[in-house]
Amino acid sequence: MPRVSQDQLDARRKEILAGARTCFARHGYEGATVRRLEEEIGLSRGAIFHHFRDKDSLFLAVAEDDAATMVATVAEHGLVQVMRDLLARAADSGTEPELTGWLGSQLEVSRRLRTDPEFAKRWAARSEAVAEATRERLQRQLEAGVLRADVPIGVLAQFLELAYDGLVLHLATGRPVQDLEAVLNLVEAAVRRS
Amino acid sequence: MPRVSQDQLDARRKEILAGARTCFARHGYEGATVRRLEEEIGLSRGAIFHHFRDKDSLFLAVAEDDAATMVATVAEHGLVQVMRDLLARAADSGTEPELTGWLGSQLEVSRRLRTDPEFAKRWAARSEAVAEATRERLQRQLEAGVLRADVPIGVLAQFLELAYDGLVLHLATGRPVQDLEAVLNLVEAAVRRS
Repeated sequence: MPRVSQDQLDARRKEILAGARTCFARHGYEGATVRRLEEEIGLSRGAIFHHFRDKDSLFLAVAEDDAATMVATVAEHGLVQVMRDLLARAADSGTEPELTGWLGSQLEVSRRLRTDPEFAKRWAARSEAVAEATRERLQRQLEAGVLRADVPIGVLAQFLELAYDGLVLHLATGRPVQDLEAVLNLVEAAVRRS
Repeated sequence: MPRVSQDQLDARRKEILAGARTCFARHGYEGATVRRLEEEIGLSRGAIFHHFRDKDSLFLAVAEDDAATMVATVAEHGLVQVMRDLLARAADSGTEPELTGWLGSQLEVSRRLRTDPEFAKRWAARSEAVAEATRERLQRQLEAGVLRADVPIGVLAQFLELAYDGLVLHLATGRPVQDLEAVLNLVEAAVRRS
């Protein structure tokens, strides 16, 4: 039997993560059954769970990648831009099952966070990375003179996170997007220097 | 067999709703099994479901009562005050199973809204009543000159609802309340005349 190189292992891991991301995004966490994961990834459960301990670990690995992407967007454009992107996708979809599934996953995550302390612990690092990126970005904006200076950075960051959570819950429950662009303008204005 | 008067029927209905409210608040929607409902209400399932078609109808009847209370608070003190009350309860609890259960129910509702169009339709009237009360309150504040006049009432109302949704999601997932009071001050200031 030929030995498998580290490169081959890494490539296989990437392949699994890509398929898993599509599957979670399309069906949500609960809907992404092991059978569907097998189909989407194109590997047997044995092969998949040779690389990831269980479905949770696979989900958290995907979420970690997502967090890294979100951290990069937050660092460059801010959390408000993340919200605007999300809203733009929601506004012209209805036909985008990936977004619907992803929003569903976020609610499943909330549910797990509430009922499963072990999962909550593993999830915490991910949310802290986004919170940290948000505070850093706000700090740079403060130094650039575009941010209001009368409210601590930590409070402004939590305000933006509250709006982000609200937006996710709003979109996940399929409510209309109507005035949300104007609402996000208001959110942005509330943290800026007037 | 003696005939049951309307008063007796109404009293029985009230009794069932009171027990159901406690049960849903304590165990969340999913956790409030028929057996637990029987215990909390002190009646058999036959007696309970003689008055309410099913568990959903019972839950929606409780939610309707909740909405009426929330509409009254919004009308008198505004949606920000509803948020402040919620935060105050969360801040000094950890020991209040009713709040934890209620927050859990809200997430279950979000889940149902997403996956069950029939439930979503029955739920819509309830949220519209709160939205309407929010807009009316804002309109009165505008006329009293305390509200900013450069953003339409509808947008301000949706902004407050977004913050409310964010707060519910934040608290339901058991995250720390730390700066949330300052965050709510920021939310309130954002809709006021500066």
